[in-house]
Amino acid sequence: MKTMNVAIIGSKFMGKAHSNAWKNVANFFDVPIKPVMKVACARDKKSLQAFADNWGWEEIETDWKKVIERDDVDIVDICVPPNLHAPIAIAAAKAGKHVFCEKPIALNSEEALAMYEAAKEAGVVNYLNHNYRRVPAVMLAKQMIDAGKLGKIYHWRGCYLQSWTMDPNFPLTWHMKKDIAGMGSNGGINSHSVDLARYLVGEIKSVTGMMKTFIKERPLPGAGAATFSAGSGESTEMGKVELEDAISMIVEFENGAMGSFEASTFAIGRLNYNYFEIYGSKGAVIWNLERMNELQYFSAKDGEGEKGFRTILTTDPSHPYMSHWWPPAHNIGYEHEFHHAVYDFLKGIDSGEGVKPNFYDGYLITKVLEAGIQSAEQKKQIDIS
Amino acid sequence: MKTMNVAIIGSKFMGKAHSNAWKNVANFFDVPIKPVMKVACARDKKSLQAFADNWGWEEIETDWKKVIERDDVDIVDICVPPNLHAPIAIAAAKAGKHVFCEKPIALNSEEALAMYEAAKEAGVVNYLNHNYRRVPAVMLAKQMIDAGKLGKIYHWRGCYLQSWTMDPNFPLTWHMKKDIAGMGSNGGINSHSVDLARYLVGEIKSVTGMMKTFIKERPLPGAGAATFSAGSGESTEMGKVELEDAISMIVEFENGAMGSFEASTFAIGRLNYNYFEIYGSKGAVIWNLERMNELQYFSAKDGEGEKGFRTILTTDPSHPYMSHWWPPAHNIGYEHEFHHAVYDFLKGIDSGEGVKPNFYDGYLITKVLEAGIQSAEQKKQIDIS
Amino acid sequence: MKTMNVAIIGSKFMGKAHSNAWKNVANFFDVPIKPVMKVACARDKKSLQAFADNWGWEEIETDWKKVIERDDVDIVDICVPPNLHAPIAIAAAKAGKHVFCEKPIALNSEEALAMYEAAKEAGVVNYLNHNYRRVPAVMLAKQMIDAGKLGKIYHWRGCYLQSWTMDPNFPLTWHMKKDIAGMGSNGGINSHSVDLARYLVGEIKSVTGMMKTFIKERPLPGAGAATFSAGSGESTEMGKVELEDAISMIVEFENGAMGSFEASTFAIGRLNYNYFEIYGSKGAVIWNLERMNELQYFSAKDGEGEKGFRTILTTDPSHPYMSHWWPPAHNIGYEHEFHHAVYDFLKGIDSGEGVKPNFYDGYLITKVLEAGIQSAEQKKQIDIS
Amino acid sequence: MKTMNVAIIGSKFMGKAHSNAWKNVANFFDVPIKPVMKVACARDKKSLQAFADNWGWEEIETDWKKVIERDDVDIVDICVPPNLHAPIAIAAAKAGKHVFCEKPIALNSEEALAMYEAAKEAGVVNYLNHNYRRVPAVMLAKQMIDAGKLGKIYHWRGCYLQSWTMDPNFPLTWHMKKDIAGMGSNGGINSHSVDLARYLVGEIKSVTGMMKTFIKERPLPGAGAATFSAGSGESTEMGKVELEDAISMIVEFENGAMGSFEASTFAIGRLNYNYFEIYGSKGAVIWNLERMNELQYFSAKDGEGEKGFRTILTTDPSHPYMSHWWPPAHNIGYEHEFHHAVYDFLKGIDSGEGVKPNFYDGYLITKVLEAGIQSAEQKKQIDIS
Repeated sequence: MKTMNVAIIGSKFMGKAHSNAWKNVANFFDVPIKPVMKVACARDKKSLQAFADNWGWEEIETDWKKVIERDDVDIVDICVPPNLHAPIAIAAAKAGKHVFCEKPIALNSEEALAMYEAAKEAGVVNYLNHNYRRVPAVMLAKQMIDAGKLGKIYHWRGCYLQSWTMDPNFPLTWHMKKDIAGMGSNGGINSHSVDLARYLVGEIKSVTGMMKTFIKERPLPGAGAATFSAGSGESTEMGKVELEDAISMIVEFENGAMGSFEASTFAIGRLNYNYFEIYGSKGAVIWNLERMNELQYFSAKDGEGEKGFRTILTTDPSHPYMSHWWPPAHNIGYEHEFHHAVYDFLKGIDSGEGVKPNFYDGYLITKVLEAGIQSAEQKKQIDIS
Repeated sequence: MKTMNVAIIGSKFMGKAHSNAWKNVANFFDVPIKPVMKVACARDKKSLQAFADNWGWEEIETDWKKVIERDDVDIVDICVPPNLHAPIAIAAAKAGKHVFCEKPIALNSEEALAMYEAAKEAGVVNYLNHNYRRVPAVMLAKQMIDAGKLGKIYHWRGCYLQSWTMDPNFPLTWHMKKDIAGMGSNGGINSHSVDLARYLVGEIKSVTGMMKTFIKERPLPGAGAATFSAGSGESTEMGKVELEDAISMIVEFENGAMGSFEASTFAIGRLNYNYFEIYGSKGAVIWNLERMNELQYFSAKDGEGEKGFRTILTTDPSHPYMSHWWPPAHNIGYEHEFHHAVYDFLKGIDSGEGVKPNFYDGYLITKVLEAGIQSAEQKKQIDIS
Repeated sequence: MKTMNVAIIGSKFMGKAHSNAWKNVANFFDVPIKPVMKVACARDKKSLQAFADNWGWEEIETDWKKVIERDDVDIVDICVPPNLHAPIAIAAAKAGKHVFCEKPIALNSEEALAMYEAAKEAGVVNYLNHNYRRVPAVMLAKQMIDAGKLGKIYHWRGCYLQSWTMDPNFPLTWHMKKDIAGMGSNGGINSHSVDLARYLVGEIKSVTGMMKTFIKERPLPGAGAATFSAGSGESTEMGKVELEDAISMIVEFENGAMGSFEASTFAIGRLNYNYFEIYGSKGAVIWNLERMNELQYFSAKDGEGEKGFRTILTTDPSHPYMSHWWPPAHNIGYEHEFHHAVYDFLKGIDSGEGVKPNFYDGYLITKVLEAGIQSAEQKKQIDIS
Repeated sequence: MKTMNVAIIGSKFMGKAHSNAWKNVANFFDVPIKPVMKVACARDKKSLQAFADNWGWEEIETDWKKVIERDDVDIVDICVPPNLHAPIAIAAAKAGKHVFCEKPIALNSEEALAMYEAAKEAGVVNYLNHNYRRVPAVMLAKQMIDAGKLGKIYHWRGCYLQSWTMDPNFPLTWHMKKDIAGMGSNGGINSHSVDLARYLVGEIKSVTGMMKTFIKERPLPGAGAATFSAGSGESTEMGKVELEDAISMIVEFENGAMGSFEASTFAIGRLNYNYFEIYGSKGAVIWNLERMNELQYFSAKDGEGEKGFRTILTTDPSHPYMSHWWPPAHNIGYEHEFHHAVYDFLKGIDSGEGVKPNFYDGYLITKVLEAGIQSAEQKKQIDIS
């Protein structure tokens, strides 16, 4: 079988999720290219070695530039914070590597566009990992919309609500620093909602937004601080939170639908509430990541007096990806979206057709997110150019 | 027992709901003033007589001005379309009658203010029937917020979604005509959401909005067309829909909370989905009119690893109004909000303290709704003056 | 319009619920006979007078036998504890009165049969108020089953769970005394489930049961003890609980379906959880009194990959009784089942066709309940003779 | 690190689920013994080789007896139909292998006891894979019960409902043959419920049961028939279904609690509805495999008027096993229970303390299941000896 060597850059939460997918995808999916876990790259050599040993990465390297230079690397998987996405992705593309990149795409839309252009120029497959597109329930919604089951779409109501930064003692991690994260909740989670809205409803024409940073100063993180955890040894020194905790947007889609977005890490009780409702002329769908194996569906075609939202358990072999997993009605989990993404990425390389969302989608998503910020700052509606 | 004579103006859906409350309130509540159903008023004498006979209104009258002139009328209950609210309410107030008025308050905020000023000048009790404040679950939410159980509020996420105008053949009823209804979904249903948001979260400082009229022309209604029904004998002639089907708003509250509103009659599958989520620093509540006897509550005080949204069945004697109804866990329905409103209205007269929401609340609500429209038209944020 | 005089016997919870229905039924339903609230009867004259004044019963009487003797009484409504049902109902029937009787029908099946025979002999309409049959969602389920939408029924899974006697200090009210209540949870709540199962699935052929009295002794109630409340001034003296707190039954229906029943007042967190699931070859329905305006429905005819339980909001004009109430999607409450029952009862008198469930249904229900007890005692399956 | 060689016997659904766990457990869990995937065994050499290649089993073998004889096998994992469990497990134990065995344990309780005795005699760790014990939500329920949060238990209400055999054309697979499966739904799914009930509530003292085989004859399967699928090339020949489609049981626990069980593959709309409710004096829990990442919890300690069932998302690091997976609120799926089981099994070997449920639990479960059948046949209550 054809193989390709993969290099992963980053070894934290996403490094783990991606490694798991690279390692196991071929057990469940008939991949056209077998990925070989060649080299893992991160700055701290000691923890990197443990990471590589655990997941079976053959080699380690602490300098990502050296990884890119290697002739024996075919695929570069980027799992580091957003500020590094553009430099790595552009270098990798120029070196002819296919690029699998975590979201959000970059610090801003210019970077995103540059990434896309580099990839296009180099003719490499470029994938942006907005993984929720590949939840079976979400893809089922897409199939239903494409089949006309919802008719003309009138409303998108989406939100992505979490609560992990509510504690004022939660430290000022990189997610709150502009030069590393680019955006706050807007980039971290609203980008997922915008990706889903574009995927399911269509392009966005205009945006009105409002933003808030509820807690303006936080303790600087200690040495051990990591993603989503407060770390050990927080400093007593305070630093300025540079990015938004929450953003709301109202949008108009090009097809005339109205849309609303809310992203916040200050929604107590919500842990990973990536939620949307889509209402059309013939039907509606509702989805919620916290119950990711379910899709709610309303069909106007149901009998008089018998209409209502149905809860479809999306674990049937007829549902996207599910024939690869377990018998009907056996739930999959969060991690499996990554297997789906890796599978489709490998197919996209093999077929030469690429895979979506790609860096250009990332560019368009970022344009929407930036319009949200600009609107919030200028207190007026922003048309997407 | 002290009694007061009531005149009702209007005999359709709201005339029925109010009559039921006036008739039965004293069976369940220890009213300080016994309402006497004195006179019913509407334009069509024949159907009015049947209405009066059914509900026990002692007399009928087809001219509302004559009703106002009667010395034996103490309370005027207004159940007619919005364009008549201001003329009737102002005349009634000037004649020294207490006024119980259906929502939305009036065609615009100037009318609303004039209504309030007339009532204030006359010293009469003036009540605007945003009835959902008096659902036990909603009032429980208010009690919890006032008791600090939610802490500082960060987010209001509300919507009021229906679907009754989606059929393009649904006729152009008065709800879609500006000179009668004033506003479309904004006045008809978003006004309820704004009332609840002000009640539960506080005053609104700024508004950004977007509006849509999805279907621009509709068949003119036939002679028999009535509220929420297509009537008989629709004309084949088409008329222009003058008001919005849907409105979305993002707001900032004076206390710094963010808010979002969506009102639409184009949300297929939703029938009477008056829904809100409120997130604070210590807890959250969620309510939905379609399950009106339930309040969902999240408390950060729940034990580690045991936190989650609870579904409180608000049918306990400890819950607002419920000790007056049935033993625990026996649901009440939509109509009972009107009994609660009438009971509180009568107490407000007796105590001299009035009752909320009053016409000034109606004025403030309308200012917010108008800001939503203005923002949608001007494509910029509007500060509430 | 034809009128009939009604006498009510009993003035507590059910007296209130029935009075409300007699008073208001004609406001919503086009009754063929107008009920006149003639006389109310209870033992305590003072509270009876207040009850009658509140609800508009024209006269009072403390001796039920005198009520039965009155020529001007056409309908006797029995709202007293079970031990009095047979004597009153039989006397009323013999006196030619139509009888509207609260559930459970009587202390045992012999009494029930005697009641039925007396009514049959006298040719009077006899109605047993298992009110949940007349919840629109339940009647919709019946219509769907009758229309073949569920196909052949395989399973009934029902329960009726409450928690009001869990407190060991809750006093020994009449519900726990055999000579007054006849049965405990079996008669009080399981009778409702058995009524629904017979209504929806069919006759029961054999029963296996298990019973428990979790708390064997309780404080005797004080003078003020009333239905569902602990009363004031409980005695410190203890008495023996004579009846079951909980009963479980497995049954076989005559049509071959399997059934399970559980009734308990020791199910913490459950307040009025009258719940059933019915599974057939083509579909399934689920209903729950705590969300009484909803019916869940699964149809095997839904498209491949799109099947799931739908939540039907049973508030459409097409749903049973609902065209009489409010516009679509306005919930009704517990009390409205009584209006439906009174309406159907009056129609049953007028048409001469009677109304179901009648006393013979009560007899058959009681046979099933007694088989449950007998099985629990004898530890073997009991066939219904 | 210490390693142990594993042999797996069986290569279908369970072979896949177990292989996945053996392969990946060490990536997430700090196992004390590293499992080496030594040899896979099944009858069909060709498909076995593909299976071994896919999952990384080093060698293959078509005769399970030869596997047992190998000195280099430390652990035998049994994934074949129930009739082979006892012979393999006993042989493996006698050969000093630790045994990891799929459920149900065996054809009957005598076999189960023999398995236990062989394992005990040999001093090997013996584990019976009732995997649902290791769902974090279920284990959280156990922790809460052990901590006294539910108080004294009054009720267990469990069911396991599926619908995969409802189609009369579904073939007569081995699940319906007594000499291979031993029992039908009773062994296949009710065994899981009984395991959970014993785990969470305690030992069962007496059982009353009812069974049904709704479809008595089915087409014989074709050559390609496999687990949960109809296979290709079904014969037109019919065969007799030997086992029950559905079983209901009422039980009494030794601690006085009442219990009910229902297992059926004729519950349309239910796919993998492994569900239970447990009610105690202080609290209640509800769980459902179709929403496996949630536990509902009712606490009587919640404030007056604020009580209700909470939905706990059991994805917090504080929840059992979850710190090994992803950040909070990232769902796990069905397969991960097997990782948990393998992890605990390896710890049980390392510590010498074994792991539960073991073969003796399997024996006790089977005694309960057999009592259910015996009761159904004899139409009387059976006491567990």
